[in-house]
Amino acid sequence: MSEQPHLSNWSCPLPLRDYPGIVLGHGGGGKLSSELVEHLFLPAFKNEALANLGDASVVSVPPGRLAISTDSFVVQPLFFPGGCIGDLAVNGTVNDLAVGGARPLYLTVGFILEEGFPLSSLAMIVDRMAAAAGNAGVQVVTGDTKVVERGHGDGCYINTSGIGVVPHGVDVGPAKASPDDVVLVSGTIGDHGMAVMSVREGLQFETLIESDTASLHDLIEQMMAAGGSAVHAMRDPTRGGVASSLNEIAKSSGVGIVLDEKALPVRPDVQAACDILGMDPIYVANEGKVLAFVSPDAASQVLEAMRKHPLGMNASIIGRAVNHHAGIVAARTAIGASRVIPMQIGEQLPRIC
Amino acid sequence: MSEQPHLSNWSCPLPLRDYPGIVLGHGGGGKLSSELVEHLFLPAFKNEALANLGDASVVSVPPGRLAISTDSFVVQPLFFPGGCIGDLAVNGTVNDLAVGGARPLYLTVGFILEEGFPLSSLAMIVDRMAAAAGNAGVQVVTGDTKVVERGHGDGCYINTSGIGVVPHGVDVGPAKASPDDVVLVSGTIGDHGMAVMSVREGLQFETLIESDTASLHDLIEQMMAAGGSAVHAMRDPTRGGVASSLNEIAKSSGVGIVLDEKALPVRPDVQAACDILGMDPIYVANEGKVLAFVSPDAASQVLEAMRKHPLGMNASIIGRAVNHHAGIVAARTAIGASRVIPMQIGEQLPRIC
Repeated sequence: MSEQPHLSNWSCPLPLRDYPGIVLGHGGGGKLSSELVEHLFLPAFKNEALANLGDASVVSVPPGRLAISTDSFVVQPLFFPGGCIGDLAVNGTVNDLAVGGARPLYLTVGFILEEGFPLSSLAMIVDRMAAAAGNAGVQVVTGDTKVVERGHGDGCYINTSGIGVVPHGVDVGPAKASPDDVVLVSGTIGDHGMAVMSVREGLQFETLIESDTASLHDLIEQMMAAGGSAVHAMRDPTRGGVASSLNEIAKSSGVGIVLDEKALPVRPDVQAACDILGMDPIYVANEGKVLAFVSPDAASQVLEAMRKHPLGMNASIIGRAVNHHAGIVAARTAIGASRVIPMQIGEQLPRIC
Repeated sequence: MSEQPHLSNWSCPLPLRDYPGIVLGHGGGGKLSSELVEHLFLPAFKNEALANLGDASVVSVPPGRLAISTDSFVVQPLFFPGGCIGDLAVNGTVNDLAVGGARPLYLTVGFILEEGFPLSSLAMIVDRMAAAAGNAGVQVVTGDTKVVERGHGDGCYINTSGIGVVPHGVDVGPAKASPDDVVLVSGTIGDHGMAVMSVREGLQFETLIESDTASLHDLIEQMMAAGGSAVHAMRDPTRGGVASSLNEIAKSSGVGIVLDEKALPVRPDVQAACDILGMDPIYVANEGKVLAFVSPDAASQVLEAMRKHPLGMNASIIGRAVNHHAGIVAARTAIGASRVIPMQIGEQLPRIC
């Protein structure tokens, strides 16, 4: 993805001012701030709630419980194969809502920009955010921009927060996993982390490893339609990968988990990149995959629904919840031995999202 | 305010690990991340929704329209007379909801921490956030922490997003200001900006200038109770000060505004600091003041309700909306002349909130 100027989402006159980059004044609440809002954010994210420009946006929500989520994004580099910090920020929060069983509705966006950050890069990020939001059927209803001096940021940090409505009767969560649940994953693991790391480390493969960043709301809706209340827990395995998400679920629900290591879907180029860097794909971040704990009677329908969806074509059964070794994730290795998959202390890959 | 360790809000065992400061792993989604959550954030912000530790928190809201708001905070220094980035971040988002006529309910918190940031400072910030949230009657229901390498941040950046419920029949907003509306301000202006600037510039006065950071929800509730639908528009004049907020209201509603410059309440020490630094208090940020546009028949009741409240004791009538010079803010000066108060291009004071 090139960083050429891409100003289709600007309206006049902001690009006509003689600032090729962000200046402190863009975060000052004066004319420069309002130009950024009026000529970049409003045209890109257009909707009525945003256009009112109040300190808060007022929206209507259907009756029901609300899911609320927040995530900050500090990924480096800002642009990587398959995506950028912009779509990552939208998809990440949409997915956090979706795995909670919610239909995502509204997002807020907070930028912390570094003085000198090119307006053309900001325009491109905003463009990708608007496309991702459109794709996920969510509206960006309010936002905020702050600017810090050169040397106190890294170009662009983004916070997205989101709300969604949890339909009546839906009750999924990490604590609801039960012994005997079948563990499913929606596709190959480690793609996002290795896409970012290949750029950072300058690794070249015959194929380009692309981030899997995607909004999972529609896939998850199909899974819920197929499995109903048999879908107990879901998680999108981002930072810390499948291993961390499974450990969190094991800890919250008190089940043990036995993984079948051979069943974990990994792209050969991702495996090769992991081997070179000395990493295990089970700890590498995903940005468009979901893990699901489903009761055994419904697992095959849910798996079938996943495989029919473009984002779930490589869905697989990867393990089982058990009622021994509570809170522990174990894997049966390819040679038939067992090993514990612990939660890591820190992380293998800093600033992956 | 000292930056001495202040660990009343920690539970074991996090402070016992040998990290005096934040390390990259605290943002990695592994054990260090969960220790931060379990031993600092959960005890400080304790509530049921947060304790579930899902990717999203599920909450109930009373029926009605929702107000949604987001704000990132990059203030320097992090601790200043009268407050710190923590209470500022909570009060700022609470106030954005309150001026929209909403009753604030839930907050999300996103931290971007710099490697090496002292855990004791983080503990103190979180403590102040919890106190401010308790004060405003809001719950912090979900959060996120990212860590960036040394030299890519400034200790601590915070995003807060919030939702509140807008009671039936309430309809206030910057576009609702009407000609003849009386313009009220709840107290002295410029306190926050000058508190921060005095620290940055090393200014010393006989009295200590303290930030006015405060949650305005209760004051605003009293104003709405006194004025009802006669309260047309409100705004908390933060970045860019009273001048910017009035310009925004004039622009959205199409009224003109005439200010009585003598009527603007300014503390003598704030005025002195502004004079030294060559600033006009009308452009200086406030973090605990509200501007209100109220129809003339209700203005005195609203003023009286404000003055009865501890945060509105110095409330004053400072001007009038008029149906000429649409979109323009003008001031009658002390010597009887008129001057236009324009929106500034950038800002006088970078990183004030």
